[in-house]
Amino acid sequence: MSILVVGTVAFDSIETPSGSAERVLGGSASYFAVAASFFSSVRIVGVVGQDFPQEYLDLFARRGVDLEGLAKKQGATFHWRGRYHEDLNVRDTMELHLNVLSGFVPNLPESYKDAEYVFLGNIDPSMQMEVMSQLREVRLLACDTMDHWIQGSRHELSRVLGRIEMLVINDSEARLLSGDHNIVKAARTILKMGPKRVLIKRGEYGVLQFSDSSIFATPAYPLEEVFDPTGAGDSFAGGFLGQLARSRDHSERGLRRAIVYGSVVASFAVEDFGLQRLLALSLPEIEERYRRFLQLTDFHT
Amino acid sequence: MSILVVGTVAFDSIETPSGSAERVLGGSASYFAVAASFFSSVRIVGVVGQDFPQEYLDLFARRGVDLEGLAKKQGATFHWRGRYHEDLNVRDTMELHLNVLSGFVPNLPESYKDAEYVFLGNIDPSMQMEVMSQLREVRLLACDTMDHWIQGSRHELSRVLGRIEMLVINDSEARLLSGDHNIVKAARTILKMGPKRVLIKRGEYGVLQFSDSSIFATPAYPLEEVFDPTGAGDSFAGGFLGQLARSRDHSERGLRRAIVYGSVVASFAVEDFGLQRLLALSLPEIEERYRRFLQLTDFHT
Repeated sequence: MSILVVGTVAFDSIETPSGSAERVLGGSASYFAVAASFFSSVRIVGVVGQDFPQEYLDLFARRGVDLEGLAKKQGATFHWRGRYHEDLNVRDTMELHLNVLSGFVPNLPESYKDAEYVFLGNIDPSMQMEVMSQLREVRLLACDTMDHWIQGSRHELSRVLGRIEMLVINDSEARLLSGDHNIVKAARTILKMGPKRVLIKRGEYGVLQFSDSSIFATPAYPLEEVFDPTGAGDSFAGGFLGQLARSRDHSERGLRRAIVYGSVVASFAVEDFGLQRLLALSLPEIEERYRRFLQLTDFHT
Repeated sequence: MSILVVGTVAFDSIETPSGSAERVLGGSASYFAVAASFFSSVRIVGVVGQDFPQEYLDLFARRGVDLEGLAKKQGATFHWRGRYHEDLNVRDTMELHLNVLSGFVPNLPESYKDAEYVFLGNIDPSMQMEVMSQLREVRLLACDTMDHWIQGSRHELSRVLGRIEMLVINDSEARLLSGDHNIVKAARTILKMGPKRVLIKRGEYGVLQFSDSSIFATPAYPLEEVFDPTGAGDSFAGGFLGQLARSRDHSERGLRRAIVYGSVVASFAVEDFGLQRLLALSLPEIEERYRRFLQLTDFHT
């Protein structure tokens, strides 16, 4: 079972209270793809510049990620520079250079068009629409977005929301999108915009999943050291969709377990800078932490 | 099985985005006692002024709370005035009048001294010590505190911590007490100060329980309307100790279930101003929401 992700492949320059990293491999599609690769084969749709090093392409290749849909364009790769506060839930974007990403029109290779599991990562909603229009028989379509598109591309975004099955966003984005401060109300408002399910990521506080008929709440895996929260949300989405594609179990129970797998992968992602921890990770480690997660939250059995 | 609580019995004046309430019944011992009263008999140790109305005493009596240890002194009752932000996790104290509470020395009635379950609510650590010194055969001693005592009465507080079994505090207090920003590290530091278990309340994000050998994490019950968060922490503690006293099950499993009962009672407490919702609550409603809580968090069965 193969997953398709469209999103950014980027250089990230990161400063956290624990240290810093310069121009490391980042971007929503990168985190998602590596996270999902433990469960399923993954195909990336995105764009990089001529400055994108072979070394980074090799990292994807080592995780078996299909790069046929990753275009290489004249110009520089998307570059984000961010700084985290001591409260790692808060970060400032210091620099943002779209570079080759601006004006990029995704063009899916023929072999990608029958993808069954698709994640529209955090990019321009018009690119998300373009990808959707090229797909043939999607089984599950999930989407992320951010404040920039909620505020600046509302109309395009609402068209996307009308066509997807799941929205995966963080709590401040849910508040902004819905206009409701209360997170339960916010989720109910967003469900009316189209998606059958809304997953709300709350960083170190866990995840909430809403549908018309149910709510699922889970804490995050408690960590003694968080080095770099960058990509945690995309790693969550990658682990979540990866496990769904692996299990093919879309029942409420299957979805809940996939959410916990996503949380587990995200908990590894933040243990080191950039993608380092995920690139050194193994499936047995994920399964072991999933079992710990079961113990840590269990008052049911 | 009877529970003893020492803490404040107060007039609260509250302003939240949903409305306001003037001089309603409040204080840590009040919320704790009403919350615990659904599970066990409860005895209050505290002090009120001559302005404390019979009507409020009657509210306790209707919940079967024993008031023999509630002293009535010359002067005015403790009064707190607070204002909540739209983000209900943030509040400002506008006025704080200790009144009869200042210089109060608790004196336990003879019938209280064999209490087995004891909660030292958020008051001066020297008063908490005084209560401990009068107890004979405590089975479980739990304690709360706040920034004011952590900063101003560190020495007294550390003596209290050396003698209790459980500390029940919120996340910002845990950070302040330990000097660690990371909440897992903070809990580990606090465990070294004496308590066998640390329960960290995170408001709408749930609760973490730490011991030397285990961690338990649970989300809070998601609510569509939160009118007034005042007393949520004490209601949690009351539900928690109440259920422990009812079940007498101090196993890891019993403690976890008690934490969820505490969370359930706290979720009711915030649904209306002051103690109104708890005073209108019934045990079947608590049990029903406990069952919903099981469903809402279950990926184990």
